Amino acid sequence: MKLNQCKIVDCTIRDGGLVNNWDFSVDFVQKLYAGLNEAGVDYMEIGYKNSPKLLKGAENAGPWRFLNDDFLRKVIPQKGHTKLSALVDIGRVDENDILPRSESMLDLIRVACYIKDVDKALQLVQVFHDLGYETTINIMALSNVMENELIEAFEMIKASVVDVVYIVDSYGSLDYKDMQYLVEKFKTHLPNKRLGVHTHNNMQLAFSNTLVAVDHGVELLDASVYGMGRAAGNCPTELLVTHLKNTKYNLRPVLQVLEELLIPLREKEEWGYIIPYMITGTLDEHPRSAMALRATEDRDKSVDFYDKMTTPEVNFDKK
Amino acid sequence: MKLNQCKIVDCTIRDGGLVNNWDFSVDFVQKLYAGLNEAGVDYMEIGYKNSPKLLKGAENAGPWRFLNDDFLRKVIPQKGHTKLSALVDIGRVDENDILPRSESMLDLIRVACYIKDVDKALQLVQVFHDLGYETTINIMALSNVMENELIEAFEMIKASVVDVVYIVDSYGSLDYKDMQYLVEKFKTHLPNKRLGVHTHNNMQLAFSNTLVAVDHGVELLDASVYGMGRAAGNCPTELLVTHLKNTKYNLRPVLQVLEELLIPLREKEEWGYIIPYMITGTLDEHPRSAMALRATEDRDKSVDFYDKMTTPEVNFDKK
Repeated sequence: MKLNQCKIVDCTIRDGGLVNNWDFSVDFVQKLYAGLNEAGVDYMEIGYKNSPKLLKGAENAGPWRFLNDDFLRKVIPQKGHTKLSALVDIGRVDENDILPRSESMLDLIRVACYIKDVDKALQLVQVFHDLGYETTINIMALSNVMENELIEAFEMIKASVVDVVYIVDSYGSLDYKDMQYLVEKFKTHLPNKRLGVHTHNNMQLAFSNTLVAVDHGVELLDASVYGMGRAAGNCPTELLVTHLKNTKYNLRPVLQVLEELLIPLREKEEWGYIIPYMITGTLDEHPRSAMALRATEDRDKSVDFYDKMTTPEVNFDKK
Repeated sequence: MKLNQCKIVDCTIRDGGLVNNWDFSVDFVQKLYAGLNEAGVDYMEIGYKNSPKLLKGAENAGPWRFLNDDFLRKVIPQKGHTKLSALVDIGRVDENDILPRSESMLDLIRVACYIKDVDKALQLVQVFHDLGYETTINIMALSNVMENELIEAFEMIKASVVDVVYIVDSYGSLDYKDMQYLVEKFKTHLPNKRLGVHTHNNMQLAFSNTLVAVDHGVELLDASVYGMGRAAGNCPTELLVTHLKNTKYNLRPVLQVLEELLIPLREKEEWGYIIPYMITGTLDEHPRSAMALRATEDRDKSVDFYDKMTTPEVNFDKK
């Protein structure tokens, strides 16, 4: 395996926050940062850098949803080897909130978008790039994108300043052949860009697909400890740390974080391989309908759920 | 994917029995059989055909540990499309217990062995073959086998009557490159044999490795519903049923079995991706030490466990 170039981006707080509304204590985040740093993990995505002004109904979210630089400086007074990252969404970030990198705790700002908004995402990327940040563009829901749209997006991305382009399996519906196909396509059309991958575990393929991506030259690998992330969750950080070859990663500090923080948290919050999420994954759909189901008393009624999801005349979302 | 030739062998009762000491009710097994049959699953491994006379301390085990033909006939009075299979272990089976296939409910008898016992396993295979059964030899713990031993075993297997030769990832330590390597090796040395695969999910690779095996020509695919099996469990039947292409498999009846039987059972019994099993998987070791840990109050003390498992001077088993 050609793995020397790999970098792990731990998304436990950012993607995991979609599970618990970013209700992580400062102590939790500090211990996680210390563990990841000791483990040799390259980046910690410590939250979203969206603006509360642009996002309704988010008043109760924890501070990791709207990262503030003064707050971050108190949380992590001394950065180690592990760099800090934040994600922004198109239309939810106020550019005026972003300090120059020289005055910020953040090293990397990533822009998530659907294919139709690649142009807007690249405008944001330019702003963050000019402020000194490393940048990525994370194209979500690739399994639902037609070839012609993708080629058009590649043209724009190729001409942009973005450092890394992400393949995002938002629905956890890709298998290793799909991943091989996408990575080769991205490499062919974006020879001047580094690549990243973000997987979901609906079909227990998040780790495996990440390994396949690595073997095909993908460099930035999103993961989260114990796979904590929306719905079925992500590629587990502990598996990458222990399994990647030719790296300086160290499993033991991740096990400490698992034991002290994530195993207890999993008792209270739910994510992972759960049948309704498997169903949306295999149907190549957003997990929102399954998340809605899991919030009701019918949470384990997989057969009814499957019937609704596979009956054309029923619109589950409006039911 | 060249998948028309694939056959699923559901091992929920046999391998799952290692979790709950084969404490499945007749009703459970009947419903499982009906569901698998409706789903189009090819084989159901309904238990072990070992002899209680040859296995100490097994008095409390459920009837699926020592299958009896009279009992089986009552459990499944009418067989459908799904064939029945049983597993035997070297030295634990009394050949005199085995009826001719024409008088038995069983269609397939599989012999599990370690590499050193391939000769003995093939003697048993010959007996079962002569009685009319389909046969397999399941070579366990392949990740711990040296090349010279394997080549020697291939010579014997090639000359035997066995129908199918299984690649068994007993410790859940193989990744897709290992699986590709093993399948190609087996194909090269055993051109006259069909192949099977049995995976464990310690590193969340059971399903993925099974798909890779399929693509390289492996025909019999072991799985269990919700992955129920010893320690980290197996490749989930529901994922194979929904994901394999060009088959007549049907997910809905498996979802019914999941909802009615397996999800409630998982509330009482434990299997799956659990950190101590991940640790034995990544260390390429038998999960017995992790199973012992999970039976104690220290069940979640992964860091101590990891330290013991990785410190040469400590013999954890004897502690």
